Amino acid sequence: MSKRKGRNKVYTIVPFKPNNPKTRLRSYLNPHERERFAFCMLGDVLSALKGSEVSEILVIATENARVLRSMENKKISCTVCDGGLDEVLNSMFRTMNQSALIVMSDLPLITAPIINEIIKCKEDVVLVPGRKGGTNSIFLREPSEFRTDYYGLSFLKHLKIAEERGLSARVYDSFLASNDIDEPDDLLEVLIHGKGESAKYLKKIGIGIQIKDKLPVLVRARTTAPPVSRL
Amino acid sequence: MSKRKGRNKVYTIVPFKPNNPKTRLRSYLNPHERERFAFCMLGDVLSALKGSEVSEILVIATENARVLRSMENKKISCTVCDGGLDEVLNSMFRTMNQSALIVMSDLPLITAPIINEIIKCKEDVVLVPGRKGGTNSIFLREPSEFRTDYYGLSFLKHLKIAEERGLSARVYDSFLASNDIDEPDDLLEVLIHGKGESAKYLKKIGIGIQIKDKLPVLVRARTTAPPVSRL
Repeated sequence: MSKRKGRNKVYTIVPFKPNNPKTRLRSYLNPHERERFAFCMLGDVLSALKGSEVSEILVIATENARVLRSMENKKISCTVCDGGLDEVLNSMFRTMNQSALIVMSDLPLITAPIINEIIKCKEDVVLVPGRKGGTNSIFLREPSEFRTDYYGLSFLKHLKIAEERGLSARVYDSFLASNDIDEPDDLLEVLIHGKGESAKYLKKIGIGIQIKDKLPVLVRARTTAPPVSRL
Repeated sequence: MSKRKGRNKVYTIVPFKPNNPKTRLRSYLNPHERERFAFCMLGDVLSALKGSEVSEILVIATENARVLRSMENKKISCTVCDGGLDEVLNSMFRTMNQSALIVMSDLPLITAPIINEIIKCKEDVVLVPGRKGGTNSIFLREPSEFRTDYYGLSFLKHLKIAEERGLSARVYDSFLASNDIDEPDDLLEVLIHGKGESAKYLKKIGIGIQIKDKLPVLVRARTTAPPVSRL
């Protein structure tokens, strides 16, 4: 099926929302902290990607974030795109003549070896499931043959799209890559398994874990500033 | 460090609580359904183990459950053990002269290939993390050199125990094996990724998924009997 052209070069796209991100974390982090934390998670993802064998990384931000420019270097560039995620990605895919990897920017536990394993899979499409039916990463040998359909149960939708288009698909099974951080309970995973900026930042602002009734719960030390807004 | 004796035989232990299990699922499943569902999950785990290369499987139940006997065959046996999980396991380890695999009975998404990969790892100790700091499976080359310490953040405790005892440790990274089913949201994963008895049972009693505000939520069809008790 696939023509396998450009198989050695992997163009990586990291969608990122810099302004008012991660609203479901607002009971633990104030707006400023949520923005900082989102940047830390992006930093961890870029760090893993830089250590991997992908050739080029493009961060596509939803809004004009000047601070993103500071992350640019020989391997990483940033751009601002209007429109929904599917619209932006699928219009890029149409003219792309090399393999593509899409990695969400809220996967602070992903590592370079995981990314290398994903892009070495032989299938046309590799899907990395996230919790609750999400798709945390997609690898496409031939981006023009696929289209994304995020939101809702995107994992099942992406599997179906691959099947309908006669593309071989593989589900890449990783706990670390399955952890997209959206809800307070997800922060437990960052604190337990994280070794990067995101875990450090949470600890710095006093977020920790306590055991209550034999179960781990998130706590915020009283010595640190409480969230400015719990809206 | 390890003497590697009996490395080709893997004795597998599956702890199981047959009576009043999974109390955190009570808002969706009545007591009878929780018991049935726990047996379905055990069935899925045993099915994966039977298809794998482990040599012998022992289900250790907390209480006398006659129905467990129906699962016994040449490869599977059942026993009832008094005492806490750590106490039971660690007393078994003391005299064990072959490799041991402990697999929790609430991992309906685990597969035979995952189990085979775990038991082929070369390290002295292999830990399979679950959500919220749990340890869903442990593989021990030399059980007598290790001791378990479940509950609380057992994953970090088990890593530390291996380190303190000079045992090489590996973290086995699997999304499917990370899903121990304790809370209603965990049922989403069974419905999305499950292919065994547990997923079939949930669908049969009318548990499904709806998208609300772009997020998947668990729903129970009105045509099925509501839980007897929501206590």
